[in-house]
Amino acid sequence: MHREQRDQTHQYLQSHGIGRALLADPANITWLSGVPQPWRAGSFLYAGGPSLLWYEDGHYTLIMMDGHAAAAGNFAAQPDCTLITYTGYAYLEQPAGARLLLEALREVVRGSGQATLGVEMQAVPAAILEGILAEQPPAVNVVPIDGGLVPMRMIRTAEEIAIMRQNFELIAQAQAVCPMAVQPGRTELDVWHAIHTALQSAAGETLFLGNDCTVGRRGGGPAQAVKIMAGDSFIVDLSTIWQGYWSDSCVTYYATEPTPEQAKMHRATADALDLAISLARPGAICRDIDQAVRRFLSGRGYPTYPHHTGHGIGVVGHEAPRVTPHSTERLEPGMVIMLEPGIYEPGVTGVRLEHAVLIGESGPELLTHYDLNLPD
Amino acid sequence: MHREQRDQTHQYLQSHGIGRALLADPANITWLSGVPQPWRAGSFLYAGGPSLLWYEDGHYTLIMMDGHAAAAGNFAAQPDCTLITYTGYAYLEQPAGARLLLEALREVVRGSGQATLGVEMQAVPAAILEGILAEQPPAVNVVPIDGGLVPMRMIRTAEEIAIMRQNFELIAQAQAVCPMAVQPGRTELDVWHAIHTALQSAAGETLFLGNDCTVGRRGGGPAQAVKIMAGDSFIVDLSTIWQGYWSDSCVTYYATEPTPEQAKMHRATADALDLAISLARPGAICRDIDQAVRRFLSGRGYPTYPHHTGHGIGVVGHEAPRVTPHSTERLEPGMVIMLEPGIYEPGVTGVRLEHAVLIGESGPELLTHYDLNLPD
Repeated sequence: MHREQRDQTHQYLQSHGIGRALLADPANITWLSGVPQPWRAGSFLYAGGPSLLWYEDGHYTLIMMDGHAAAAGNFAAQPDCTLITYTGYAYLEQPAGARLLLEALREVVRGSGQATLGVEMQAVPAAILEGILAEQPPAVNVVPIDGGLVPMRMIRTAEEIAIMRQNFELIAQAQAVCPMAVQPGRTELDVWHAIHTALQSAAGETLFLGNDCTVGRRGGGPAQAVKIMAGDSFIVDLSTIWQGYWSDSCVTYYATEPTPEQAKMHRATADALDLAISLARPGAICRDIDQAVRRFLSGRGYPTYPHHTGHGIGVVGHEAPRVTPHSTERLEPGMVIMLEPGIYEPGVTGVRLEHAVLIGESGPELLTHYDLNLPD
Repeated sequence: MHREQRDQTHQYLQSHGIGRALLADPANITWLSGVPQPWRAGSFLYAGGPSLLWYEDGHYTLIMMDGHAAAAGNFAAQPDCTLITYTGYAYLEQPAGARLLLEALREVVRGSGQATLGVEMQAVPAAILEGILAEQPPAVNVVPIDGGLVPMRMIRTAEEIAIMRQNFELIAQAQAVCPMAVQPGRTELDVWHAIHTALQSAAGETLFLGNDCTVGRRGGGPAQAVKIMAGDSFIVDLSTIWQGYWSDSCVTYYATEPTPEQAKMHRATADALDLAISLARPGAICRDIDQAVRRFLSGRGYPTYPHHTGHGIGVVGHEAPRVTPHSTERLEPGMVIMLEPGIYEPGVTGVRLEHAVLIGESGPELLTHYDLNLPD
């Protein structure tokens, strides 16, 4: 389970002279451990802080609240991994998550050597860092490692791709209910309810559902009690998180037969997306794809969209590489990217179409299985 | 908007000799500013960190990502408040949320004096604290203030109670669909979908929905594709977050006419809850309520429940005071607490009933408007 990620990270840290490291970014913890992290934020009386992952010379110790540890599966059965849990919820005594989390970490750090200490400074709470440095020699060398794993995360392992394939299947099943749900007289929220119901029914569990579900004239955003009218296009941009990995997708529907102008916009967007997909090959530079797609739509007489052409996806919904006008990132086999051109006439109509693409040795493979073409 | 909270906090910090403070706990930021904070956690490419609230001698500066600032309403119009936003999403350049957030904070701190600096050490990322301390004199006095506002948060202002009343109305509307939804042959997920649809339709917006939706024999947890059978009880424990404040509620339903044993359990639980509510008066000590309710159920021959009897609620779902066997917290007018006794026979059946109670000068007032009694 995610051994390749840990081995790569070991090599990365060793090559930077880092013998010990403290990670707290939930995305990196998921990527390194395969253990999904809670996606609900904010204060929580019991957890006392984020899960922590301690690296030392090739070994990984994950410290999680007991109530979250069911998600840890067989993580601890692996030779290079240790799982430590601490009591979160308690009712016979005061919950003490913050103290117990720090104590568990200190116990682990106490047994470590004196090597340079890498720290995810943007994710580790100040109290945690201070709590372990208090027991370190004053001369300990602390090195920020924020963002260090991001380039490695771009290339997906077979294990990750298998999960992502299933997630994209789920989200396609959710999209599949939209042609029936998008009808004049219904509201954006009605469509959202049909989608969330379909998604969770397909998955057999409750899942986060994100992104946009609006009439095209609103251009995107969360569903509201806005009534769908005859002549409306309807943008459904959906993400979910499944087993720690994100999916994404966008399809534009029509409340009634699209007008000739809408059909033209739709076909132009579909053609732009096809162009983007055709360019998504090993060696391609992201900005070249972005610029080609924008040029294509300009050539058809449409304004360019005020957002990226695409983005990587994995343990975060938007991650590297980014397909933007100035991105010099290069596509490589094993990357999974979203491509999503659009055309918007604010207040009037809008269309956005999106596919997920696995960059294969010999070319792009679609992971989102739905048809974006209008019937002829 | 939340002026009382800021004034109280000003007095608290002044009385502790703290002239400047950095807060990052989303619950405290919501409580002090009235600005709801994002509830979705995890890594986010654009935000670069949590919202930050800088206090200096009675003035509050809120630093938020631009994309979240719509929630800030008229916060900045208040004389003791300043709002600073930074660019999160960007596609013509690299997103730089973490850097921009820190730069915005440094700019504010740079103009501050030398007073003792209070810091929410458990919530502030290490990079943020290090980033501002780098520009402070080495002798600056840093004082942890984690948990310092929690006792003040217990007493709700009129403004907060007005929001919470509306939120409890919303959650009661969600509970109201359950008698029709809980039917043999349907699944837990079917019930969950009916609930979430009703909640969001009532609110006119998408909302987080939390907690338990299971057949009583499973005792609680997230809804799954588990089929409801004749003879099942069904536990629906719901929370949502609305305008930054939490609601909570629990009702037990029956797939078919409750058996005599189930009816007896249900009435005992309802009586235990009534007892708890009757005791929820100014001056009551929380453990006395907890112990009285457990004794009552033991006296009826039932095992005691393996959880708290209740908890405060506000900007966090579970906050102080806690109604537990050893809690010495004292109820005071203006507190809002949940009370939720239950009886569980794991694998067989279960019942849990919950009301929200506003502690009034003259006694308890229910904020959750539903009937927990079985028909006679």
